[in-house]
Order: sequence, then C-alpha cells, then structure tokens
Amino acid sequence: MIVLMQFSAAPEQADAVCEAIRGQGLEPLLMPGEHMAIGIPSFIPPELRSSLEGVLGSLPGVSRVQHVSRPYKLASMEWKRQPTTVEVKGVKFGPGHFTVIGGPCSVESYAQYSKAAKMVKAAGAKVVRGGAFKPRTSPYAFQGLAEEGLKIIKQVGEEEGLVTVSEVMSGEAVAMVAKYVDILQIGARSMQNFPLLIEAGRSGKPVFLKRGPSATIDEFLLAAEYVLSQNNEELILCERGIVPLDRSYTRNTLDLASVPVLKEYSHLPVLVDPSHGTGVARYVAPLAKAALVVGADGVMIEMHPDPKSALSDGSQALTPEQFKMLMDDLKVLAKVQGTVM
Amino acid sequence: MIVLMQFSAAPEQADAVCEAIRGQGLEPLLMPGEHMAIGIPSFIPPELRSSLEGVLGSLPGVSRVQHVSRPYKLASMEWKRQPTTVEVKGVKFGPGHFTVIGGPCSVESYAQYSKAAKMVKAAGAKVVRGGAFKPRTSPYAFQGLAEEGLKIIKQVGEEEGLVTVSEVMSGEAVAMVAKYVDILQIGARSMQNFPLLIEAGRSGKPVFLKRGPSATIDEFLLAAEYVLSQNNEELILCERGIVPLDRSYTRNTLDLASVPVLKEYSHLPVLVDPSHGTGVARYVAPLAKAALVVGADGVMIEMHPDPKSALSDGSQALTPEQFKMLMDDLKVLAKVQGTVM
Amino acid sequence: MIVLMQFSAAPEQADAVCEAIRGQGLEPLLMPGEHMAIGIPSFIPPELRSSLEGVLGSLPGVSRVQHVSRPYKLASMEWKRQPTTVEVKGVKFGPGHFTVIGGPCSVESYAQYSKAAKMVKAAGAKVVRGGAFKPRTSPYAFQGLAEEGLKIIKQVGEEEGLVTVSEVMSGEAVAMVAKYVDILQIGARSMQNFPLLIEAGRSGKPVFLKRGPSATIDEFLLAAEYVLSQNNEELILCERGIVPLDRSYTRNTLDLASVPVLKEYSHLPVLVDPSHGTGVARYVAPLAKAALVVGADGVMIEMHPDPKSALSDGSQALTPEQFKMLMDDLKVLAKVQGTVM
Amino acid sequence: MIVLMQFSAAPEQADAVCEAIRGQGLEPLLMPGEHMAIGIPSFIPPELRSSLEGVLGSLPGVSRVQHVSRPYKLASMEWKRQPTTVEVKGVKFGPGHFTVIGGPCSVESYAQYSKAAKMVKAAGAKVVRGGAFKPRTSPYAFQGLAEEGLKIIKQVGEEEGLVTVSEVMSGEAVAMVAKYVDILQIGARSMQNFPLLIEAGRSGKPVFLKRGPSATIDEFLLAAEYVLSQNNEELILCERGIVPLDRSYTRNTLDLASVPVLKEYSHLPVLVDPSHGTGVARYVAPLAKAALVVGADGVMIEMHPDPKSALSDGSQALTPEQFKMLMDDLKVLAKVQGTVM
Repeated sequence: MIVLMQFSAAPEQADAVCEAIRGQGLEPLLMPGEHMAIGIPSFIPPELRSSLEGVLGSLPGVSRVQHVSRPYKLASMEWKRQPTTVEVKGVKFGPGHFTVIGGPCSVESYAQYSKAAKMVKAAGAKVVRGGAFKPRTSPYAFQGLAEEGLKIIKQVGEEEGLVTVSEVMSGEAVAMVAKYVDILQIGARSMQNFPLLIEAGRSGKPVFLKRGPSATIDEFLLAAEYVLSQNNEELILCERGIVPLDRSYTRNTLDLASVPVLKEYSHLPVLVDPSHGTGVARYVAPLAKAALVVGADGVMIEMHPDPKSALSDGSQALTPEQFKMLMDDLKVLAKVQGTVM
Repeated sequence: MIVLMQFSAAPEQADAVCEAIRGQGLEPLLMPGEHMAIGIPSFIPPELRSSLEGVLGSLPGVSRVQHVSRPYKLASMEWKRQPTTVEVKGVKFGPGHFTVIGGPCSVESYAQYSKAAKMVKAAGAKVVRGGAFKPRTSPYAFQGLAEEGLKIIKQVGEEEGLVTVSEVMSGEAVAMVAKYVDILQIGARSMQNFPLLIEAGRSGKPVFLKRGPSATIDEFLLAAEYVLSQNNEELILCERGIVPLDRSYTRNTLDLASVPVLKEYSHLPVLVDPSHGTGVARYVAPLAKAALVVGADGVMIEMHPDPKSALSDGSQALTPEQFKMLMDDLKVLAKVQGTVM
Repeated sequence: MIVLMQFSAAPEQADAVCEAIRGQGLEPLLMPGEHMAIGIPSFIPPELRSSLEGVLGSLPGVSRVQHVSRPYKLASMEWKRQPTTVEVKGVKFGPGHFTVIGGPCSVESYAQYSKAAKMVKAAGAKVVRGGAFKPRTSPYAFQGLAEEGLKIIKQVGEEEGLVTVSEVMSGEAVAMVAKYVDILQIGARSMQNFPLLIEAGRSGKPVFLKRGPSATIDEFLLAAEYVLSQNNEELILCERGIVPLDRSYTRNTLDLASVPVLKEYSHLPVLVDPSHGTGVARYVAPLAKAALVVGADGVMIEMHPDPKSALSDGSQALTPEQFKMLMDDLKVLAKVQGTVM
Repeated sequence: MIVLMQFSAAPEQADAVCEAIRGQGLEPLLMPGEHMAIGIPSFIPPELRSSLEGVLGSLPGVSRVQHVSRPYKLASMEWKRQPTTVEVKGVKFGPGHFTVIGGPCSVESYAQYSKAAKMVKAAGAKVVRGGAFKPRTSPYAFQGLAEEGLKIIKQVGEEEGLVTVSEVMSGEAVAMVAKYVDILQIGARSMQNFPLLIEAGRSGKPVFLKRGPSATIDEFLLAAEYVLSQNNEELILCERGIVPLDRSYTRNTLDLASVPVLKEYSHLPVLVDPSHGTGVARYVAPLAKAALVVGADGVMIEMHPDPKSALSDGSQALTPEQFKMLMDDLKVLAKVQGTVM
C-alpha cells in the first residue's frame, strides 16, 4: 500500500500518516524519490485493507491511497497454485476441457424446453441452460415461469441426461432453485448481490458467476471470494461482456482479454457467453470460436428451437442448425488446441 | 420502432418482417429513403416491446431493431405531468426544496451515531443516513451491525427528531428494515435487483433509489418503474456517479447532466450523492454546490464525527465542521436559486 | 431520420418541425403511435444529414433527432458489394488471406531494425512495421529517429524484400513518409486528424488506419470515408483496443466483436493489433489467434529482437522466439479456417 | 515505481528485476509484505520513466509496473506553486475571475459573425469564439470558411473590441491562424496531435486546450506538458465532456469533478464547455452554472444569432436571449462565490 501526499502537504502531515500506520502495527517507509509518498512494505491482512485505506485517505494532506497487492485471496492463483476443475455429474469445467452450455434464454413450456434440450444434446453438448426467473430490465417484459419452469428444467434434464444450469436472483430463492437444478447461475446484474453470493456459497451447489457489466477484474474476483469464503470451491466464472462504448452494433463489449487475465491470476475455470456479449445471433459463432482459442474453458450459448417465437432475447439466439454448425467448428478447433470437447 | 435491414438483405426478407409485424396486429411502414428500413408508426404496448424486439431481431436479413419511444411509462413526465414531491414526516423531496441527507457511511455504535446525528441536526439538515447492512466489494471489509444497527438508527432518529434512511440489500430484508427506518435506500449495486425493487415497492415505504454504475437513463427509469408498478409513488432517484474513465483521481464519474435530463423526462425527485460520486472528501463540497445549481432536489452527504476512525469509506466523509460549512454555503445558493432549504 | 418531440411539446411545435422538414424539400411523416415522433422516410443526402440534425434539434419542443441510416457511404458494403483486397507488392490484405505485420515499436538503429526484419522474415511474415515518428503521451519519452528512421526502414525493407509500414503523424509529413515506406499508418490518436486523413488519401499510397480509443464504429468508418473520398481505395482498417474499463491488467479493451461488425457493414479489410490492444506481451498470442478465428484479415504484432532493451513499449513486444511460435500457431489455425497465410 | 511480480515468478526473476533497476543507476527495494513487489523509492527522471516501464515490464515473471508519482512536471502544482493567470488583452483567465467565451460554432459570414459578436458583447462577455477550420466527424458536413473565416474573425474582433479564439487543426496551420486570432484553440480530437501541440507552444500565442474524449487526467496534463515544454505558459485547459455511457440523452458526459482535480494538481486555469459537454441547448445553462460553483475559471458557450439556421451544431447553441439570461444568472452566482465577472 502506498500513500501519496498532496503537493501542498506539510511535513507534519506526512508524519501524521506515518503515525497512523504505526498505530495499526505496521511500519511506514518514506519513498523520498517520489514526492512525499509513504509505503507500507509489510503484509496487510485483508480485514485491514479497506478500513486502512479509509483511515489513511481521510488524513489531511493525503492525495490518495494506492493498493499494490491484489485484494482477493481465495480466488487467487497464489492461494491455490493448481487450476480448479469443477466437475458436475461427470462434466468437467476446467483446463484441458472445452465445455459448451446451450439452450434457450427462458423456459417457456415443457414442449419448447424438451425440444431445445434434445437439440443441445444432438449437437453434442452436455449442459443445458434455461431461465425460470428472468431478470428483465423492464417490468413489462416476460419474467419467467418461476418454480413451474424449474420443474420443467429438472424433468427435461433427467430425461435427456443433461446437466442443468439456471439463474437464481435472490438469496431467499437459493434453496428452491438448488432443489431443481445442478448449477446455480448468478447473473451479471447480481454479481454484487452479496446476500445472494453468500447463500449460493452456503448451498454447496456449483455456482456459475457472471461478470457484471461495470466490474473490474478485482471486483469480479472479490465477488467470487464471497462464494469461496463459504467453503464452496465449486465456482465457475463467466465473461459476458462489459458496458459498451458503442451500443449501435452490439449490446455489450465482449472482453476476451479477460480470459487470459483471469486464468493467470485465478485458479477458477472461466467460460465466455458470446450471446449476451454481443446480443446479435450472427456474431455469436465467431466470438465463441475466439473464446476457445483465447483459452476459455467453455462457452454458454443461447439456442432456441425457433428464435422468432422466443419470449425473450430472440435476436441473440442461434437456431438449432446454427448451434450444430458451431459445435462442429468448435470441435475442430478444440482438437487443434489439444482440448477435450 | 424501426427495423433496419442488412445491406445484403433480399426483398423477401423485408416482406417477412412486414408479415411478422402484421402478425402482431401492427402495421408496417416501408421507409424507402433509408436503405430498407421498416417502421411501425402505431402504438406498441409496453408488454409487447421487448418480445417484439427479439422476434423481429431474429429474422434473417435484419440488421437491428431500434426503439423510438421511451421504454418507461409510470416514471415518465408524459404519464404524470406534474412533478412528484415525496413528503416524509414533513420533510419534502421535490421541486422548490433542497433537502440534505447527512450522516456516516455505517452505524458503528450508539455513541458514534448519536454524535453524528446531533451534528447533522446542528448543521440544519433534517434527514440522517447510516448503513446497518453494508454492500462491500470485499468480504473482508466491515459488513455493518445488521439489526442492531437498525435499532440504533430508530432510537437516534426519534431522539433527534430526524427522518432516517438506511440501505436494504435484499427483498427478504425489506420488512425488517421497514420496521426501523423511514426511507428504504436501494444502493447502486442493487439497482437491478428486481425482487428487491418489487418488495420495496410493495412495502409502501418511501424508496430512495440510486443509479447503478453502468445504468443508462432508460435502465435507471425502468428500475424506478418496478417500484412504481407496485403502486408506490414515494420514490426518490439519486445520481451517485457512473463507471469512471479515470480511477486515479476519483472513484466514479459524477454525471451531473443526468439531473436536468431526469427532471425533464421524469416527474420523480432527483438527489445527488457527491460522496460516492467522487470518493474524495475534498471534492464533495464543490460538487454538492454544483448539484444544487444544476437543479437537484437535494444531496446525500457522508459525514462522520471522526473520519479517520470510520470503519468504512473514511476518505470520502466530511468532518462535522466541513459539513456545517457546506450547509451554510448551500443555504446561500438555495436563496439565490429561490429554493427552500 | 426521426425527430422526437418533448413530452411537453405543443402541437404547433410539431407543426414547425414538419414545416422545417418541408423547407428542405423533404416530406415529414407523423408517427402517431410514438409520442409525437416525426419521421423523414425519404432519402437524405449525406451533405444535408449533419446540418439538418442541427436545424431540427434546435427547434423548440424537440427532444432529440435520431438517425436511422448509416452516415458513411463509400466505406459501406452497400456502396461496394464486393470486399476490397488491398494488394501491396504482392502482399494481399483482404478475404481469404491472413497477413501478419511484425516488427518493433520504434526503429532504433540500422542494426536493431535489420535484425528485427530478418526475424520477421524468418518467421514467415511479409510486412515489417517500425515507427520513425512516435506519438508519445509524454514529451519526455523517446520520440523516434524521424527521417533518419525512415531511411533505415526503406533500406531494410529493400534488403529483406519486405513490405514496410510506418506511422505518419501530420498532413505535412505525408509526402516525406510516402517517399520511404509502402504503407502509411495513421495511429489511433490521429484517427480524427482530418487534415492528415485527407493528405494520406491524396497521396495515393495504401493507408493503414487504426481505430481511435473512443471511436464508435460509425466514427471509425467516417474517418475511413475521409481517405476514400480522396479517391484512394487502398485502405486497411485496424482494431487496436478501446478505452478500457479496467486499466489494472490491460492497457486497452480489445473489441474483437468489431471485426465481424466491420466486415458486415464495410467492404474494407480489417486487421487487429493485439499488442496495443492488451499492452502485455503474454496476452498477445492468445488474442492474435482469437483475431484469426473471429475473421480478421491479419494482425499487427510488436516484436523486438531484445524487448528489455527497447526504447519504447518493451512490455508489449514479443521476443523473436515468441513471434515465431505465434506464427506457427497461426498457420495451423489459418489452415483450419481455410485462409492463406 | 513499483514492479509487481507474477504469482508464478521465481526468486531469480525478482533478482533479475533488481539487477535491471540497478543497471539504470537506481536502487531496488524489496517489499516483502506484498507478494514479491519491488519498489524504486528514489527519484526517476521523466526521461527514464517510460522506457524504464517498458524495460522492467518486459522481464520474465513481471506482472506489471505501477507508477506512483505523477508523469507531468511543468503542468503540476508542485513545479509552480502559484496558480497561473493567463491574460489576453486585459482579459484574465485564472483564479478570482470567471471569464465567458461566447459565439457560434462556425463563422458562416461577416453578417452572421458580426451579429453574433455584438450579442456576445451586449450580454457582457469579452471573448468571442468561432470556427474557421472545423473538425467534422463526417466529410460531408460543413468544413468551415478557412482563411476567409479567420479574416472575418479578426475584423469583427477589432470592431467589437473582443478577444478572439479559434481552432487550429494542424501544426502547419498554426502560423496562419496565429496571424488572425488572439487565442489558439486545440480541439478535443487534436488533444494528442503532438506536432500541433509543439507548434502551438512555439507560436508564443495563448493556447486553449480541450480535453480529449477518452483522456485521463494524466494524459490531459501530459498534452499540456507538450505546450509548456516549448516555453509557452499561456495555456488554458478546458473540460468538454468525456466518452458517454449513454448517448441517448446527451452527446458526452461532462466530468465536472475534473475541475477541482485539475485545480489541485495543476497551476493552469480551467474552463468548462457545457455546449459540447451535453450537446443539448437546454442543458447548457444549468451546467454552466454548475461549472461556476464547482470552481471553474470560466465557460465556453455556443451561441448563434439564429440556431435553427446554423450550418453546424445548431442543437447545442443558445439563442442570444438565452445567452443573455445565462450571463445574468452567472453574474449573480459569481458575486456569491466572490469571483469577478
């Protein structure tokens, strides 16, 4: 941690900063070459990090407090030197595997979902998605079938032998969703819903955590830290696009560089969602392929038996034919990359 | 709504779009001057808006679907032509009034909170803030006193005759928080926590809704719409800074232009939070004053009896003396602007 | 073009808008379903587009003016239905080819540049980059060897039989740079240096245009339009990263989705620069491979014979060995994609 | 400067970093508490800063290089402890003064510009703006009257006794523009046109430098540094809005917090341009007033005798009546703030 003093700071103000650092049992280090910067070269416990930043930042003459070390611990590659593989009913999320999650945005009916799942399976994917509780920007949009939808997911998952994943939107709903699905999805808008993160962690179920649209890497991994701190290591990260510079052509900006970054700093598996990442069906395939070669451990793809009749997000859903073609292309690339798919 | 066709679209694809529009009981309009654009000049019910976008967007040859009208209804100035004033125990949030909410980031103890509230009152403010449930980016940071904190808020509010506001982080906690405080705050990270928005709306309590860091104006007003759609019109909006271009000097980018924009398009009162908006105590006063002259109906200011001992966000908290000086400056400006304070 | 009226607009104000539209020889269309929106369904000449927007936008009661059609013409796939291939001394930039540009950030000496070029060639690339005029954020950073550097580029290019590309930073310098190099690079910071774009267009030389860090797709293609409007079709676009959400891990956010977007809306070839796009040497290879499968026509890669002695941008430069490995990986993927490399 | 090692870094890699630091005549400091961080506590000359970052960043095992000190020198408040006041023909830009620049986006004719200037003067402003060379996003938009426009500016400035400011778009045009106008404006798109910055610096003329849409504070002040390093201290900074989160309601996001930030870290005067900052005439007045109370040294306001006939940017121009009203409001606020206007 480095404390930068203002240009106008008096030497006594720097002394007061040193005093405050010592008051926390730490040793300050004057960095004379930089204009009145004071470093804390020793270890700062995570519990102290945030309050110490506030305390030092509030002292007169301080310009700002800059962190040097990373704020996450359990999520870091430093804490656990081996990459984590999350295994759900034999399906692996982690290095050496490229796992595709397919399926519609929303569960609309047994018929629609069963059809979708059959097509997911026929194309060679082993995990099916489908929303029963839908976080919709507008209260006037379709909100999902709720528990009825979860029952359909469970039934169809069993019938087809597919692993299932569905979104949970609040801590209180975790128990119910956990009863029906294999993997709990936490959506981008809920990435900093801390009560939800804690409940999902406590459930012991595998968790699929999407990056929030304005989340930095540190914020993303700290959200992961909430889950991990409940002794739940069954956690999968998902890049799904960040706040776009240009909303005219795509819905979000898919930040594919976050994949090698996350893989370097964290041991957790990383998937990519090019459907939300672009919002446009015809850009999904090229970006899914890019996700594979950039090093992701899989992708989540929206596919609908009949996109033009979808109750939500039809414009980003692939048709079953497009999904099949993409799966075939991915298999060729996976072979080149030496990844199992 | 306008459907733009791709450059490569065939005439039959445009026909299919027209057909799909007619299938919804609407009339398409070819716009020959623009390259194959198809408009829907008639009224589109809010319930149809989102699914229609998906349906048309999924058709072959469609480049994108562009909305023309605004997606919110109850929050709009069109729906309710008079500005709304939310009145809580005699304190008014709305045009002609400039209402200051002051107080610490977190309730830390009865002594600390009581001291803070007395200072808020002494400076002339009528509403005291204070967090009992704290949404913290890191699980290692102070998380608040929970119900114990709410009890302190209630007691101190009554002792000092101040209106109280505190954050609620989940739908299930609404009932408990509503029991103790006058105004339910929904934080920036929870702006799209839809179950929470609905519960807060149902509570009948006044709601103080902060803009999310990546929220567009439409997304912000649609979040408001969730509350309003529960027949709760006691809603106050708060601009608190958006995702920053430059994190080196401020924590967020305070978007003050959103104030006149929101006041033009919505009837709801709008406050500004320059404490989170900048994250730096010494920039709070100038931006609070700017909020006043730009037309905000008030500000929320973090003030701590002793910022350097604060358990959270010390570096953005004013001292009681700074808060008093700011209040005095605001009063002078309020007089110039013809606003009651 | 659609004119949206304010909620408070009077019918006479809408009439005045219609009158102003008719005054330009165009026909207004009332869109009754949308709250007082007025469309112009007929063709709007590009010359009229911008001033008409200003005129209508300044009328009382107007909320905003929304474009429907795309603002670019010569750069659009609509204008020229076949993709453009730019050929320079037998090297092709365009569909079916994946062309790699390699070389150091700056030309530092004949020895350094000759060594770099030999390694570029040995790895199988045919185009060598190298800056003689360097746009540096700080005036204290190395600014390049100027004309001396250009002479080195020319000499080395001829010795090794490589096509050369180098940046030009001002309109007045175009003639000089054009004398020595095969392709004129216009850097991201100069994307809207309009006098430079015009001079580069007039030079008749092939132009390599990088996207500016805050440029939307429309702004990027309008910058291209400046070059094309000088009757110069030898234009190559380059995505190199946009303004980052998170500066802690990468220097920019590489927007790979812009590749399929640009390829759909424009006929121009599109390359990707993952070196500036990430700013971190160890992320360059995965993102270069992602660029290939996402459909780019090539990549520009910084490679330095000895990155740790580089006078600029050393931390994003590959070593010759890393460059060679990347080339080999790209060749395998190019084969899979059916692209010549 | 702090060098952060990767989690996987070997001790020998940290040794190599220390060696490289010593090779530059500097002393490394191991920071044991942070995971393998190596600081350089001594002074780093500006000339070394950028190349050293590259050198260290390119070493194996290095995660990233983090600056602690600010990169600018001449622009900093540390270098020159007193705020700078730029005085042009008796008009002061600096602390204690609030200076308004008014006038149309473009010079369209002598009649239009003379009328505009008379209205600027009648409202009490002393500086008139007007573009003769217009940087337009589209090549089809009005590009300005060029030298003919400059002649009109000079004549009208003299007739009305107003100080004049006009944009220059390239280094080669500096001499010509400098012949006719009092202050050289460098537009947002040219903020990193380094040859232009150097030429403007050399001209000895006062320079009005706008912040680029994606420029951080450091990048902005480094652009200022280019001008200052030519021994030209007659430099005025201007905040004009940064890349917007939401383009639907405003054209840019006006970053008013940048005013107190710039005033703290730099000695240079800071103005605000709410016309480009919002792009909407009806939001200009509230944001101009906010600029005054936030501590800006003035504002630049677009005003046109007849906005609806303007050849450029009509929708953000005030009418003469609106401009006069704003001037009157600003005068009242200036009195409250104790500023001369």
